[in-house]
Amino acid sequence: MRTRPLKVALLGCGVVGSEVARIMTTHADDLTARIGAPVELAGVAVRRPSKVRAGIDPALVTTDATALVKRGDIDVVVEVIGGIEPARTLITTAFEHGASVVSANKALLAQDGAALHAAAVEHGRDLYYEAAVAGAIPLIRPLRESLAGDKINRVMGIVNGTTNFILDKMDSTGAGYQEALDEATALGYAEADPTADVEAFDAAAKAAILAGIAFHTRVRLDDVYREGMTEVTAADFASAKGMGCTIKLLAICERAADGGSVTARVHPAMIPLTHPLASVRGAYNAVFVESEAAGQLMFYGPGAGGAPTASAVLGDLVAVCRNRLGGATGPGDSAYAQLPVSPMGEVVTRYHISLDVADKPGVLAQVATVFAEHGVSIDTVRQSGKDGEASLVVVTHRASDASLAGTVEALRGLDTVRGVSSIMRVEGE
Amino acid sequence: MRTRPLKVALLGCGVVGSEVARIMTTHADDLTARIGAPVELAGVAVRRPSKVRAGIDPALVTTDATALVKRGDIDVVVEVIGGIEPARTLITTAFEHGASVVSANKALLAQDGAALHAAAVEHGRDLYYEAAVAGAIPLIRPLRESLAGDKINRVMGIVNGTTNFILDKMDSTGAGYQEALDEATALGYAEADPTADVEAFDAAAKAAILAGIAFHTRVRLDDVYREGMTEVTAADFASAKGMGCTIKLLAICERAADGGSVTARVHPAMIPLTHPLASVRGAYNAVFVESEAAGQLMFYGPGAGGAPTASAVLGDLVAVCRNRLGGATGPGDSAYAQLPVSPMGEVVTRYHISLDVADKPGVLAQVATVFAEHGVSIDTVRQSGKDGEASLVVVTHRASDASLAGTVEALRGLDTVRGVSSIMRVEGE
Repeated sequence: MRTRPLKVALLGCGVVGSEVARIMTTHADDLTARIGAPVELAGVAVRRPSKVRAGIDPALVTTDATALVKRGDIDVVVEVIGGIEPARTLITTAFEHGASVVSANKALLAQDGAALHAAAVEHGRDLYYEAAVAGAIPLIRPLRESLAGDKINRVMGIVNGTTNFILDKMDSTGAGYQEALDEATALGYAEADPTADVEAFDAAAKAAILAGIAFHTRVRLDDVYREGMTEVTAADFASAKGMGCTIKLLAICERAADGGSVTARVHPAMIPLTHPLASVRGAYNAVFVESEAAGQLMFYGPGAGGAPTASAVLGDLVAVCRNRLGGATGPGDSAYAQLPVSPMGEVVTRYHISLDVADKPGVLAQVATVFAEHGVSIDTVRQSGKDGEASLVVVTHRASDASLAGTVEALRGLDTVRGVSSIMRVEGE
Repeated sequence: MRTRPLKVALLGCGVVGSEVARIMTTHADDLTARIGAPVELAGVAVRRPSKVRAGIDPALVTTDATALVKRGDIDVVVEVIGGIEPARTLITTAFEHGASVVSANKALLAQDGAALHAAAVEHGRDLYYEAAVAGAIPLIRPLRESLAGDKINRVMGIVNGTTNFILDKMDSTGAGYQEALDEATALGYAEADPTADVEAFDAAAKAAILAGIAFHTRVRLDDVYREGMTEVTAADFASAKGMGCTIKLLAICERAADGGSVTARVHPAMIPLTHPLASVRGAYNAVFVESEAAGQLMFYGPGAGGAPTASAVLGDLVAVCRNRLGGATGPGDSAYAQLPVSPMGEVVTRYHISLDVADKPGVLAQVATVFAEHGVSIDTVRQSGKDGEASLVVVTHRASDASLAGTVEALRGLDTVRGVSSIMRVEGE
């Protein structure tokens, strides 16, 4: 075993970074044995150097992250700052100065993954980012490596713990969105500004990364259809229950039936209670994978938090250090398939539509005609009403999103339809 | 990309081997792109050459496996024969002749993993065996690589599909063991001689492999406590239901609380219906992992079958081929921790004990005294009886297996105890 330590620069020392530093210290012997050489924390770049950081030698702390990655003796840069800049420039600079990079930065990877991977390849270094998707759950490595001999057809996951906590709370207590969000905020599951979570920006970034890895193709953040979950109501949950379903915010990456294109989308959806994803509670994440040979797999665990995310970062750190010692690089970007990403209109799924309609004869016939004219086949209709008002719940067979959108637009034009109160996709069947 | 293909020798062409060969042909372009070079099936060793094998060039088929692995131009040997010999000698010979090895052989790995790993290291080659545990579920790679920076404290899994099918059937229909086994046999889930499955030899081999990888130590098959599931009764399931539990055959690998030793065991156990493993149905497998930083993770999927197992084999094949091309080897055996494996008597868990007792005053006091004398604390007792006979169901707090065994022996010596009708461990709380 070599005794010269591998030098690690840590960029960012917040919830995740401080856990990474702590475990590097407390579990140094295990890391040494597993890597084949000791690892040394060579510097920690922070914004506020005055903040007390338990267990971190103050002499290692710097505010000059650029100087740290340019030192020239750094073997691995661990980037847990988040956001696009300065993370992007720091990672690129790290490669230029001979370091491999471990990142937890989903936003950056989703936006600039291709360029960063190209920089890694140019300099013969690794770019690993298991922590960027679904926190501690081993997911990127299994998709990229364990399933490298298989053909993945669908990845469907709960990849945002905040929104799963909120939806689970609404499901179990009957609370409305705002009430459940308030509780999530009070308990620290939601940030003061929850936009990135509840509007599904976070999940969309993860969907872009997952789709790219699963299908060996390039999927950009802009390619991902995104719909937040702020408009999910207690009434939607009641409807879902009536169908033996619950509602989850799902990231869904699919290969088209003909194999010639892919889609990636994030939106709330009803799924049957019998589906393995339906029982994912609280802030947990889970990703359901369907592949040609392996069949149905699921990966489950905590999707966020300092220690879980640090576990993923450190797993990558061990791999990257082993590669450095062996003079090799791990499996990197794989986008050879070059499949086009189809727009949301071409996605085919089922729909649950609630309509407020006039309670008079012939309304159902009118509504059914509109569905038929747009080629959307109806599975079931439930009608209930009183005092001249009625509601109609239609569940369709599989149809394209474009056909459904056309149907809804036409329904809105009917005199007898007072409003379309909810449209929700139905998945997992 | 290099154009000289990597040559693969396939040993065994049964359910798994024929799927491996099929996918290597049908997905050749994907494998080439993911590896960085084409892979060529250079030979297939079988026992019965006359059997028609669709899609396999008859010129590749041989009955002389030894000559095939000795050819000298083989880059990777895929061993899907199973059993100890000739697999062991063939794998050793493969290393000696410069090949890396992908194996699905749990029995051999559990028995001789250390020697085989040593042979791989000696010759600078890889030994991969994702398919040996839990079929298609990516498990060995996540444990060995994704969690390489974490400390795993417990691995608890359903790792045998046949017995899970039988137990699930007993749970859902109220059937007895024999009836459920008969159905499993009729449906092809159980073999004509189901001993390896129902007596938990299969699961014990997997537990040995998992414990070794999880705790970075050596765990031999003989170190694993093994108890089959042939004595689980419909009455046990009724008792489990009364406690909000079901019964699963679990492989449990644990690090002692003080970290200084480990245990590995396989036996039927009650687990709460709320535990993620409780909802694993049919012939599916799932493994629940608890680690210090990541927390609770679960991996779920098909545990057997030709195509799922082939998926795992091919994932390994891609990794091993990439390593060959890069002149590197992947992470191999890691047994540096050298932890002792404690005997079953030192395992600490909870117990559910059913006693047939005389229905007279003072019996409960007598029984409770025996538990107290052996240091086993009682959680709950339920008593029911009629016509001079009564039954007593005792659920204990956590106690050592040795204390419980002593308690049961003493109970059997009581005049008032007619019999101990069932003892089952309670896990997952």
